[in-house]
Amino acid sequence: MYVLMDIMVSPSGVGVSISPYVARCQKIFEEAGLTHSMHGYGTNVEGEWDDVMAAVKRCHEDLHEAGAVRIISHMKVGTRADRAQTMADKVTSVQDKLAAKSRS
Amino acid sequence: MYVLMDIMVSPSGVGVSISPYVARCQKIFEEAGLTHSMHGYGTNVEGEWDDVMAAVKRCHEDLHEAGAVRIISHMKVGTRADRAQTMADKVTSVQDKLAAKSRS
Amino acid sequence: MYVLMDIMVSPSGVGVSISPYVARCQKIFEEAGLTHSMHGYGTNVEGEWDDVMAAVKRCHEDLHEAGAVRIISHMKVGTRADRAQTMADKVTSVQDKLAAKSRS
Amino acid sequence: MYVLMDIMVSPSGVGVSISPYVARCQKIFEEAGLTHSMHGYGTNVEGEWDDVMAAVKRCHEDLHEAGAVRIISHMKVGTRADRAQTMADKVTSVQDKLAAKSRS
Repeated sequence: MYVLMDIMVSPSGVGVSISPYVARCQKIFEEAGLTHSMHGYGTNVEGEWDDVMAAVKRCHEDLHEAGAVRIISHMKVGTRADRAQTMADKVTSVQDKLAAKSRS
Repeated sequence: MYVLMDIMVSPSGVGVSISPYVARCQKIFEEAGLTHSMHGYGTNVEGEWDDVMAAVKRCHEDLHEAGAVRIISHMKVGTRADRAQTMADKVTSVQDKLAAKSRS
Repeated sequence: MYVLMDIMVSPSGVGVSISPYVARCQKIFEEAGLTHSMHGYGTNVEGEWDDVMAAVKRCHEDLHEAGAVRIISHMKVGTRADRAQTMADKVTSVQDKLAAKSRS
Repeated sequence: MYVLMDIMVSPSGVGVSISPYVARCQKIFEEAGLTHSMHGYGTNVEGEWDDVMAAVKRCHEDLHEAGAVRIISHMKVGTRADRAQTMADKVTSVQDKLAAKSRS
């Protein structure tokens, strides 16, 4: 089961600046060989369900080891039965609609 | 690693009424022996990380089998390193603060 | 436009215990006369769009005044065009499906 | 109060393909003069609180007029009291940490 995920990891008990912790998770997604792309409020990650979820678990374990007392991850997890779709397909699909609109 | 989760499962391609699908997931959490409690925008579920995540995966698989073309789950996943805390503890903690405020 | 909302307010720069801050928002929803109900990962709030959103804004302003350096609220905001529905209706609808299943 | 928001708009009762509806919201953010950037699971939008929230309301109203029976928006809404920060700053901050790590 292929999954398109969005995840925002929020460690607490580590001060206001959480970017070093977010960077650790980026590294974990990278090492897991998952397609990933960061935006202003999280990271899009895609791959097989078990691989993606294993990476999320490693991310929580790693941040706790790095000192985070408490972690909340906000995730969107999407699967579909009809056809394969990548994260890039989703963005392209909306952009096509916008382009069609501005032509008309 | 103990996890407190909130999950809202959104199947699409099944019409506007999604309550029969939500009911299927409730049943999966129940059968998995996980503590769970439904509210107006999702379900609080708690348990060991692997058990909770296995139930979420079963839920996606089950709803696809039941006809959902596309499913997006919105999840909040919380872990902590300092002490055990249940979902009920979290609610009680806020209620205590409110009670203290109204007494003062 | 009537809205069913779920909100989880996360202040940071205030230590690990955020329940006093969550309690302040509860009080704001109460004073605004909005129907609200707390669960383990947030609060269900319902009412007219402008009233609900004004309360959310007051909540951010109030927590900043109370010392929160940074606040992120995670919100689910639902509106519908077909019929009126309360938060309680949503829960009842799923419970009816579960009861029907266990009878069959 | 400046706000960094992430929003994912989910209309239902309109079939599985929701990209035309997402495109309508993009257009509303554009016309409102708000900085916005789409990713695989939503759109980052930033601006003054009232301007951003007015655009979100218009988006719900517009999609209902366009036929969406039911709409749920998942939003992350962030404000801070200490300093101005744009969405681009947040991404840059994590990238700097990653670059520092790979140099060390």
